[in-house]
Amino acid sequence: MHSELPWEVWSRERQQRIEDALDRALAGEPGRLGEAMRYATHGGGKRIRPLLAYAAGEVAGADPARVDAPAAAVELIHAYSLAHDDLPAMDNDSLRRGKPTCHVAFGEALALLAGDALQARAFGVLASGTMHAVGEACALLARAAGAAGMAGGQAIDLASTGTTLALSELTTMHRMKTGALIAASVQLGARCGNPLSATQTTALDLYASAAGLAFQVVDDLLDVEGSSESLGKTSGKDAADGKPTFVSLLGLAEARRHAVALRAEAHDALVPFGAAARRLHELVDWIVTRTR
Amino acid sequence: MHSELPWEVWSRERQQRIEDALDRALAGEPGRLGEAMRYATHGGGKRIRPLLAYAAGEVAGADPARVDAPAAAVELIHAYSLAHDDLPAMDNDSLRRGKPTCHVAFGEALALLAGDALQARAFGVLASGTMHAVGEACALLARAAGAAGMAGGQAIDLASTGTTLALSELTTMHRMKTGALIAASVQLGARCGNPLSATQTTALDLYASAAGLAFQVVDDLLDVEGSSESLGKTSGKDAADGKPTFVSLLGLAEARRHAVALRAEAHDALVPFGAAARRLHELVDWIVTRTR
Repeated sequence: MHSELPWEVWSRERQQRIEDALDRALAGEPGRLGEAMRYATHGGGKRIRPLLAYAAGEVAGADPARVDAPAAAVELIHAYSLAHDDLPAMDNDSLRRGKPTCHVAFGEALALLAGDALQARAFGVLASGTMHAVGEACALLARAAGAAGMAGGQAIDLASTGTTLALSELTTMHRMKTGALIAASVQLGARCGNPLSATQTTALDLYASAAGLAFQVVDDLLDVEGSSESLGKTSGKDAADGKPTFVSLLGLAEARRHAVALRAEAHDALVPFGAAARRLHELVDWIVTRTR
Repeated sequence: MHSELPWEVWSRERQQRIEDALDRALAGEPGRLGEAMRYATHGGGKRIRPLLAYAAGEVAGADPARVDAPAAAVELIHAYSLAHDDLPAMDNDSLRRGKPTCHVAFGEALALLAGDALQARAFGVLASGTMHAVGEACALLARAAGAAGMAGGQAIDLASTGTTLALSELTTMHRMKTGALIAASVQLGARCGNPLSATQTTALDLYASAAGLAFQVVDDLLDVEGSSESLGKTSGKDAADGKPTFVSLLGLAEARRHAVALRAEAHDALVPFGAAARRLHELVDWIVTRTR
């Protein structure tokens, strides 16, 4: 067996941290609703948003323990969005992370409420954390999750099914739908350490913007190239649903080139941080080369 | 025409304040999703939770302008919960405040997303407000909205349809489903002014608990006694849905007596505050004597 690379050790340790933090965040949630919340959150997520928060925290010299709350908060928002997106009224998906989706396992009403309660819990965890300026952090997360961010992007996504979007429109939609929460993960993690300069904050925003979009381009590629088994969710679904994607717009080869160019953009943004941005650098590598 | 009573002037002014605050909170929400959010929030709500926040603020000598943010936040949480509760997967209601429900007007997917985005906006508004200890305030609102509060109560409500509950179980369900957010409205309003003693905070909690339960008992009475026209929502729905209510459990006369006893309990809790609690006193009067 090969010995673990430093990157592998780091990401395994941080993945364990976030699983523990999510366990703590949801352990007390009562009843069958609590079960549905834990079901929707646990079991096989890549935890890319928490990893970005921990990696951004390192840039600012943050204690990982201080990043636990925002890392858990962004993952809880992500988990709630999946539970709702999978509902029959939305994407109507029955497979997620290799398991039946939340509404298949618990019924529609409870999956809806589990998503609602997960969003509330996300703000509760963030607000009870130890980071500075926790009010500003809650405001930032609210913007990323709301109508100008994730929820708004999802609304545009639904409205654009069966239509053709220009590349700029598709990019705007994804900057809202997935990019906003990914950017918030980086921003919240970075706010757990020493104050950054305005220039540094802008550089991290550029990084997050490119990394977030790269994540979505690769998602579109995997939906075409991957199998349901390796993805843990239904593959080929975008085309079947008539959804505009980077692949439908650019073709496979050009979409792949787009992802690689976005990775280079993300790497460039990190240059001023030097070695402190090592993990952010590696994370976007992983985002672009992942197979699920 | 009769000249307005002080109570009428106060509640009219505060209702105007909250409408303005909600307008400001939602004016910038983009696209058709923003329209759905405004539709779900505006138009005929009683605004009882904001009124409780303003009235509790007076007990602590708070500037009403400081109460605007928590008052809007609790109403946005309430509006989101109505948009989701009315969905076909939940109560499947088509009439609310005399208008088609959000999903009837905008479709299920957008009503779901509007609720999601309203919850995010609630935390954003609260976090961006001027009250002290805004992090603690967000944590308090998150508890009230989440699995141990409103969402959890709704889950119990759904599970109990078609069953018989003991009075204690029905009370617990409503303390979570509606009582938790009403209590949070009082607590958040009171936190906008001078610090209260532990004894005073406990007294306000007792008030809120009794007033919240009284609100629900009267809701159950009106569902039986009122017309759809005067209520602005479908009447007689609880019985048709096989939902346990205070009326189904106690009968009309005993349920009415229960509401009056809870009002007395709420009034008793206010005695230590004297004249500063005048509006809270009048609000529970209104809660118990209202006809819609």
